[in-house]
Amino acid sequence: MTSTMTSQHAFDSAVALTPDGAGNFSGRTTPEYANMVGPFGGITAATMLAAVQQHPQCLGDPVSLTVNYAGPIAEGPFTIAAQPVRTNRTTQHWTLSMSQDGIVATTATAVFGTRRETWTSTEAAAPSAPPPHTIGPDPLPGVIAWVGNYEMRFIEGGVTELDGGAAQPSSTTTLWVRDQPARPLDYPALTALSDVFFPRVMLRLGRVVPAGTVTLTVYFHADTDRLAAQSDHPLLATARSQHFGNGFFDQAAELWAHDGGLLATSHQLVYFKA
Amino acid sequence: MTSTMTSQHAFDSAVALTPDGAGNFSGRTTPEYANMVGPFGGITAATMLAAVQQHPQCLGDPVSLTVNYAGPIAEGPFTIAAQPVRTNRTTQHWTLSMSQDGIVATTATAVFGTRRETWTSTEAAAPSAPPPHTIGPDPLPGVIAWVGNYEMRFIEGGVTELDGGAAQPSSTTTLWVRDQPARPLDYPALTALSDVFFPRVMLRLGRVVPAGTVTLTVYFHADTDRLAAQSDHPLLATARSQHFGNGFFDQAAELWAHDGGLLATSHQLVYFKA
Repeated sequence: MTSTMTSQHAFDSAVALTPDGAGNFSGRTTPEYANMVGPFGGITAATMLAAVQQHPQCLGDPVSLTVNYAGPIAEGPFTIAAQPVRTNRTTQHWTLSMSQDGIVATTATAVFGTRRETWTSTEAAAPSAPPPHTIGPDPLPGVIAWVGNYEMRFIEGGVTELDGGAAQPSSTTTLWVRDQPARPLDYPALTALSDVFFPRVMLRLGRVVPAGTVTLTVYFHADTDRLAAQSDHPLLATARSQHFGNGFFDQAAELWAHDGGLLATSHQLVYFKA
Repeated sequence: MTSTMTSQHAFDSAVALTPDGAGNFSGRTTPEYANMVGPFGGITAATMLAAVQQHPQCLGDPVSLTVNYAGPIAEGPFTIAAQPVRTNRTTQHWTLSMSQDGIVATTATAVFGTRRETWTSTEAAAPSAPPPHTIGPDPLPGVIAWVGNYEMRFIEGGVTELDGGAAQPSSTTTLWVRDQPARPLDYPALTALSDVFFPRVMLRLGRVVPAGTVTLTVYFHADTDRLAAQSDHPLLATARSQHFGNGFFDQAAELWAHDGGLLATSHQLVYFKA
């Protein structure tokens, strides 16, 4: 089960699926991507996307993905059912669910599509950041396994600000991040990277509180050429919240290429107690 | 079929559903909310949310909603199937589909939940805007029916900038908006309002081009007390895009209360040709 025994990257082991030929896929959680309870939400989202990509009826590339974390995922095997609900000329719509022992733990919808050259403009601006090699990777607390699979170089709002216990006026975190060991970027890896930020409420409050993503949406702006150009370079990732209250907060994230293109934007709503 | 024949608001007629007692609901499109092709996407999203609210197993209030526009909706009757996939202590997860003649036109997932008092903070800032009564409502082009159901007072990026044919450097539109005639705000109406912006690509290019929402997500920040306080006051609504390219662009929207609270944030990915 350990990735050191084979040449396969831990990420590829974690999203590996066995198809039954009828739109169902078997997988299992891996210890490398364990979170406090169950697996890292980003790896679950990546696995849902991978199921669509491996479905024999899949057309085109990912355009959007929404994953709803309906219940805890236990360590061990799971099944993903992927259904192509509707196929159009440009887009294909998918409905998915992940179950364990017949109980749904995660639901998702995905849109795949054909990208065609059009007018293009990036209106958002990447945060200013020094080059990744000028920032030392942060030694992250070892209690959570999945963070060990990411090289994180924090520019703003790092985890060290959790230790100090000081409340922060801003929920923004900006970092250079990539898989560790480095791995060429693909859509599942980009999906997982969009969930790589620790809960914004902890940054604001300066302490660890219970929090868990309820729903995550990723909009994929990069085509396969852009992913290939990014390869295993670090991504510039930034996230912030707009509102916290009544037990929920939102998070908006941007994932930028090493040379400035916008690869993906992502949104999530997170449950918290504080 | 016209709302003038009864005292019912056209919005309530449009989202009206008849339950079959087994989680299926019958409805029909109304001419008042017609778009260029099929109904206004906002009214479809509102109707999906209304189906959950009317389901006998519904617990709590809307927390998030994602609607995927899988195919065109024809004028006439439709069926919504709403399934409570999982109910937890704080959240309830729903999967929905809207069909016509057995063909799925729209899919959705929703999270409902119980709101509890917690630490609260609004980090986003409302755009600056003069009071609504100081801005004349825009006479909107009469070709699209649904816009007649909204009172729109544009502060920035109005529809008049589509006529001039001048490309704009910013995709931001900000307006005061409410149902017309005025109607107390509820979650379905808030859902529809989150889709009230014309496609951002048209503002940037200064001309009308083919465009249609592929997927829409709404995060509800307002509890029922906030909705009651908002009543039928205009909302301050703002939307902008981060990236346009390869036939798709995103839109991020914020819906602010008349007195400054953040009622909802919303995101969508839109197909376009230009």
